[in-house]
Amino acid sequence: QGILERLNAGEIVIGDGGFVFALEKRGYVKAGPWTPEATVENPEAVRQLHREFLRAGSNVLQTFTFYASEDKLENRGNYVAEKISCQKVNEAACDIAREVANEGDALVAGGVSQTPSYLSCKDKAEVKAAFRKQLEVFMKKNVDFLIAEYFEHVEEAVWAVEVLKESGKPVAATMCIGPEGDMHGVPPGQCAVQLVKAGASIVGVNCHFDPDTCLETVKLMKEGLQAAKLKAHLMSQPLAFHTPDCGKQGFIDLPEFPFGLEPRIVTRWDIQKYARKAYDLGIRYIGGCCGFEPYHIRAIAEELAPERGFLPEASEKHGSWGDCLSMHTKPWVRARARKEYWENLKPASGRPYCPSMSKPDGWGVTKGARELMQQKEATSEQQLKELFQKQKF
Amino acid sequence: QGILERLNAGEIVIGDGGFVFALEKRGYVKAGPWTPEATVENPEAVRQLHREFLRAGSNVLQTFTFYASEDKLENRGNYVAEKISCQKVNEAACDIAREVANEGDALVAGGVSQTPSYLSCKDKAEVKAAFRKQLEVFMKKNVDFLIAEYFEHVEEAVWAVEVLKESGKPVAATMCIGPEGDMHGVPPGQCAVQLVKAGASIVGVNCHFDPDTCLETVKLMKEGLQAAKLKAHLMSQPLAFHTPDCGKQGFIDLPEFPFGLEPRIVTRWDIQKYARKAYDLGIRYIGGCCGFEPYHIRAIAEELAPERGFLPEASEKHGSWGDCLSMHTKPWVRARARKEYWENLKPASGRPYCPSMSKPDGWGVTKGARELMQQKEATSEQQLKELFQKQKF
Amino acid sequence: QGILERLNAGEIVIGDGGFVFALEKRGYVKAGPWTPEATVENPEAVRQLHREFLRAGSNVLQTFTFYASEDKLENRGNYVAEKISCQKVNEAACDIAREVANEGDALVAGGVSQTPSYLSCKDKAEVKAAFRKQLEVFMKKNVDFLIAEYFEHVEEAVWAVEVLKESGKPVAATMCIGPEGDMHGVPPGQCAVQLVKAGASIVGVNCHFDPDTCLETVKLMKEGLQAAKLKAHLMSQPLAFHTPDCGKQGFIDLPEFPFGLEPRIVTRWDIQKYARKAYDLGIRYIGGCCGFEPYHIRAIAEELAPERGFLPEASEKHGSWGDCLSMHTKPWVRARARKEYWENLKPASGRPYCPSMSKPDGWGVTKGARELMQQKEATSEQQLKELFQKQKF
Amino acid sequence: QGILERLNAGEIVIGDGGFVFALEKRGYVKAGPWTPEATVENPEAVRQLHREFLRAGSNVLQTFTFYASEDKLENRGNYVAEKISCQKVNEAACDIAREVANEGDALVAGGVSQTPSYLSCKDKAEVKAAFRKQLEVFMKKNVDFLIAEYFEHVEEAVWAVEVLKESGKPVAATMCIGPEGDMHGVPPGQCAVQLVKAGASIVGVNCHFDPDTCLETVKLMKEGLQAAKLKAHLMSQPLAFHTPDCGKQGFIDLPEFPFGLEPRIVTRWDIQKYARKAYDLGIRYIGGCCGFEPYHIRAIAEELAPERGFLPEASEKHGSWGDCLSMHTKPWVRARARKEYWENLKPASGRPYCPSMSKPDGWGVTKGARELMQQKEATSEQQLKELFQKQKF
Repeated sequence: QGILERLNAGEIVIGDGGFVFALEKRGYVKAGPWTPEATVENPEAVRQLHREFLRAGSNVLQTFTFYASEDKLENRGNYVAEKISCQKVNEAACDIAREVANEGDALVAGGVSQTPSYLSCKDKAEVKAAFRKQLEVFMKKNVDFLIAEYFEHVEEAVWAVEVLKESGKPVAATMCIGPEGDMHGVPPGQCAVQLVKAGASIVGVNCHFDPDTCLETVKLMKEGLQAAKLKAHLMSQPLAFHTPDCGKQGFIDLPEFPFGLEPRIVTRWDIQKYARKAYDLGIRYIGGCCGFEPYHIRAIAEELAPERGFLPEASEKHGSWGDCLSMHTKPWVRARARKEYWENLKPASGRPYCPSMSKPDGWGVTKGARELMQQKEATSEQQLKELFQKQKF
Repeated sequence: QGILERLNAGEIVIGDGGFVFALEKRGYVKAGPWTPEATVENPEAVRQLHREFLRAGSNVLQTFTFYASEDKLENRGNYVAEKISCQKVNEAACDIAREVANEGDALVAGGVSQTPSYLSCKDKAEVKAAFRKQLEVFMKKNVDFLIAEYFEHVEEAVWAVEVLKESGKPVAATMCIGPEGDMHGVPPGQCAVQLVKAGASIVGVNCHFDPDTCLETVKLMKEGLQAAKLKAHLMSQPLAFHTPDCGKQGFIDLPEFPFGLEPRIVTRWDIQKYARKAYDLGIRYIGGCCGFEPYHIRAIAEELAPERGFLPEASEKHGSWGDCLSMHTKPWVRARARKEYWENLKPASGRPYCPSMSKPDGWGVTKGARELMQQKEATSEQQLKELFQKQKF
Repeated sequence: QGILERLNAGEIVIGDGGFVFALEKRGYVKAGPWTPEATVENPEAVRQLHREFLRAGSNVLQTFTFYASEDKLENRGNYVAEKISCQKVNEAACDIAREVANEGDALVAGGVSQTPSYLSCKDKAEVKAAFRKQLEVFMKKNVDFLIAEYFEHVEEAVWAVEVLKESGKPVAATMCIGPEGDMHGVPPGQCAVQLVKAGASIVGVNCHFDPDTCLETVKLMKEGLQAAKLKAHLMSQPLAFHTPDCGKQGFIDLPEFPFGLEPRIVTRWDIQKYARKAYDLGIRYIGGCCGFEPYHIRAIAEELAPERGFLPEASEKHGSWGDCLSMHTKPWVRARARKEYWENLKPASGRPYCPSMSKPDGWGVTKGARELMQQKEATSEQQLKELFQKQKF
Repeated sequence: QGILERLNAGEIVIGDGGFVFALEKRGYVKAGPWTPEATVENPEAVRQLHREFLRAGSNVLQTFTFYASEDKLENRGNYVAEKISCQKVNEAACDIAREVANEGDALVAGGVSQTPSYLSCKDKAEVKAAFRKQLEVFMKKNVDFLIAEYFEHVEEAVWAVEVLKESGKPVAATMCIGPEGDMHGVPPGQCAVQLVKAGASIVGVNCHFDPDTCLETVKLMKEGLQAAKLKAHLMSQPLAFHTPDCGKQGFIDLPEFPFGLEPRIVTRWDIQKYARKAYDLGIRYIGGCCGFEPYHIRAIAEELAPERGFLPEASEKHGSWGDCLSMHTKPWVRARARKEYWENLKPASGRPYCPSMSKPDGWGVTKGARELMQQKEATSEQQLKELFQKQKF
């Protein structure tokens, strides 16, 4: 059954987690470029991660084609040991995802994401050409449906949806925006309307913000669609990091990004709360993005097991709400084998010299950053700012 | 070259990370029992993790035989879907480790750990028999050397070393103790002396405490050996969690154990500091335990690259001190591409409703725990306490 | 010169701090009732606090007549050792304030605040009568101007202003509301408009929220007045507690209110930032409320000394930005004798087991509270809620 | 009844709080010099603070003669508007304390503290002469007993006790040390023994550390006295700041000293716990030092009311354990009217951008401080260090 058949039938569809962060920790992806050449260089590592998500309960395996547009791969090409063609990366991603999907009951989704071409103000035709190049591979490899994800500008997301719709396959579209809307100031409700009008059957958000913030944004999208009397399925794939202190552009501006985010990692119990809240909000495609590990996906599946009627395979190695601790030799550890304990735990950071929140960086707060830039690159603040604004960030 | 040849030559030997925690997050190990039947059930998952550590720089691959003594596996047998024999688990662990070790320049170490037999007061012969059973497999599979690890009582650790020494292979021994010493009150210095006298060539600590605390304990071991005019190589494999608030028995007593430890996870920069400090203390076998992911091991290898003269394979996907951010489009993210930034960052938890430290649980502080036990099991506190003391915890 | 002459001439007028909190700590006011019978019982204590504020730079001494309406004093009468008449309390308050004001260059302001009569739905005439009773004393004692402060409902505040305007004296009006507006949902801008139309020459906020939140609210008031093309002077008298976690009704709902607020107390440097920000926003009547001690008021005067051209008397005992530390025997303490140090200090709480923020109590979050009420008073939740809603809280 | 009659009869004697910090906040004492010329300049402010402590339950009023030795007053003389003689300051302090003591049932204690003479290595005779000068005033004004307090070196404290004993009056002696002992390395137990042998009838600690740390130190003193078979009454007057992160020299080295300590201020409930713990440890002279406000002293009196059989006057304005909230209009605030609530509250700081602990400054950690010194004073680090060591800090 296809993605729309499932969603139309009222099923809950569980997504997978973010590949770039998980594989960065495993040693196969470079932070900064965040490109997916691992599909060619280390296919067994990509395959294993797919398997873990499948085992944890994912119903959709996304091809590991994040930032795999040709312009991006070229732009970051110096990081890739030997140049690997865009086509090869995308093809390998499809093959691996399909191989693992066939081991279970999962769908394969081909994914495209925002492009350097758009950010450097290339025209619509050129940006669309980049998406089309990836789409050709997805069609050749016959993925089950398509996702346009990680867009900061609804304009580019609409272009992506338009290209993907040419395939005739169902299209989902998620933006990496918060309640304040996209980088040009378009509010979430309006973004959702534009995406659905462009042909997306499923809309929502992914990345950049924590579960609570993402759900808030999807709620605004839902309200926008209702006001416009449009229908679409809702989807959310948030970060697995607590980011209450984010600004408009999300976790990238936090001083901890990307190498000091550990204390922000959410627990499995946080995810169970997220899954329940997402479900109550009417979201039926529930997954994750950066920071999600297989056990986070399993937490979605376990929270919604009563509604779905079954547990994922990986729950064989997990007791519900910590009940696997009930045989521990220490009575006070045994006392943790219950839902109320974990639901109410306020976990300590073990870091008494650290704060609980940070001020996001950005123009105005980064005097130090600017000074450094100036020293290093002899670029005046004005030049940097102009450059910056030109890049639309 | 064997482990002792390397250490005697002054080489730095990098250990691997903790398998039970990493594979629990991936869905293959059950928290509570923490047994390694995955070597038989999901060998590809175990193999992949070994590969990641090898790629990250590990010079030693430990067989995934933690808690794989026959008494432990039987004791926790109800968790294992279909009973898998102790021998099979241990054999598979050896085969997988050897297969991956051969892909690089790593040694295979067979590992034994503390037994339920000892904790339930079985006699020396019976406890030794349990170790010997695992040792037979290690000899048959011809591991390169042996590790007795995760012992809370030096008495049992000495028995383990004595058994392992029967093999003629080099033996390392690490205890999961802090500066206060073992559970019977033997201080670290004396533990080290007893272990070396029993035949261990390498001594140190693993698990239960954060890097700083572990180094403090190894320092006490070093001083004990010096005072006794004994020579041995030093080793440390700490947690990758910040635990300044631990009591004598380490992180198990923290309220966050084991499902709410996320905010305590150390960063790669914390590990670089640890590696440098360990090296300066004279420790030459430097690895990790629970919480260590491949990128933490890579951080050891990167910090000590100047001394060793080379970087691990996984550093292809990592810039030193964040320099892979130097091409980021945002100047304030580019400004993070430098050592000073990450060295001085005090990462926020993103959890303003949580404290920074916890009070460890234990007798005296767990009124709630005791009440719960009483309700659930009709066991009086006195009975529990007796039971508890009998179990020597 | 009167208050309006000063403000019209562009002068900065510095208010005083909150008497009930300061005198509670000194042992003269009871938390809960918060009534000012100390003016009769312990006039020397009230006089001394006035003197300290005067010395710290206050240009206005408010009569200590908070909650001194007859209905309030009767309502809380059981707390007062021997019944003291409303008139006596108010008269004594005026006499003390005038005595101290004459020692310097300060004005005396007679103050009224919200009444139990309004909260228990008495009619306009009855509520106004309560204000008029206090006003009679203020006229007899010839205060310099009048303040209606600490109103949660603009309707009652307008009634108060109307009564006070009968005197012919200048009237200031401040509400204890945040950016969300009054308890009936009237937004701050509209509140300000209504107050000015009723006759207030100065409008703003006091109490309930921290300096940042109060300034945000005054900003909304300013915008409301501008939109309505009305003119008035702006005024702010916030808490000296950090309350970023407040809900709509302010710090009373925080679990720490009123006996655990210590870790939230603002530093003198926080107040200097507040004074500067208030000034930049166009506020010219700048004072404080609960939590303000004399040194906080002095901080306002010191921050704005460049604009005003003079320092308050109490600055004889204070160096600017810590420069009184420049002779300390320890060089690292001497190094604190500079502005940059204190401006950037992120002061630690010394409380590693405490969080940085709290969830406010209120309906929905206070299961425990409701249970307790039920046990103690055999009042059903429904009854409580009805009672509660009737009271308009 | 004199101090020793009371203590010998088993009575609890309640001390007062720290004057320099309380009067600094009120505008009468300058941080840095911390000298008490306010006794002459603003006697009404000093008198009022004495009255508040008396009302709160203090049985002893200490003359405000801290740092009032002639050498100190001269050393800091430039801060004093017009030179006021040492004799005048001390005489006025005695007169004010006696006046207020006569309003109740309190004793007057004349106090001396450590001298610049000692720190700059003057000889014993000269240091003793400084104490003797103050003692002459105390004798002329006939104080009830004498206290040598705030000594970092037991050698100087012994000299002080020897001088004070010349008077024939009872002598108490408290040092501002922690469990690590005095600045020359003499452990607390040995300090106590030396002080008792020199003639002190009461020994203990004051200032520099929080209540918990002070009690730990007094416990060591008690054990030292027991081991030496000496008898003396025990006394503690700690800070009202949480300082778990202090080093050997206490809160002065914390980065927040003295103008950013607000988030560390203890609550009244913290003080009730302290009072109980002090009592259980056998301490019978229980008071406070810097940070203590009258309500903190009242908390001691309220906690120990069952043992003493009476409440202080200021308890008229205070309900036990918050019971004055039981009539609040909001049920969730009423729910705070109970002991269990306040005992278990973990108060939030309201400062999510601040840490919970700080690293103390000092040699080795204050690179920035040293650099600054160098710039400002053209003093090399070596010179500073020598100067520093000469000063014995």
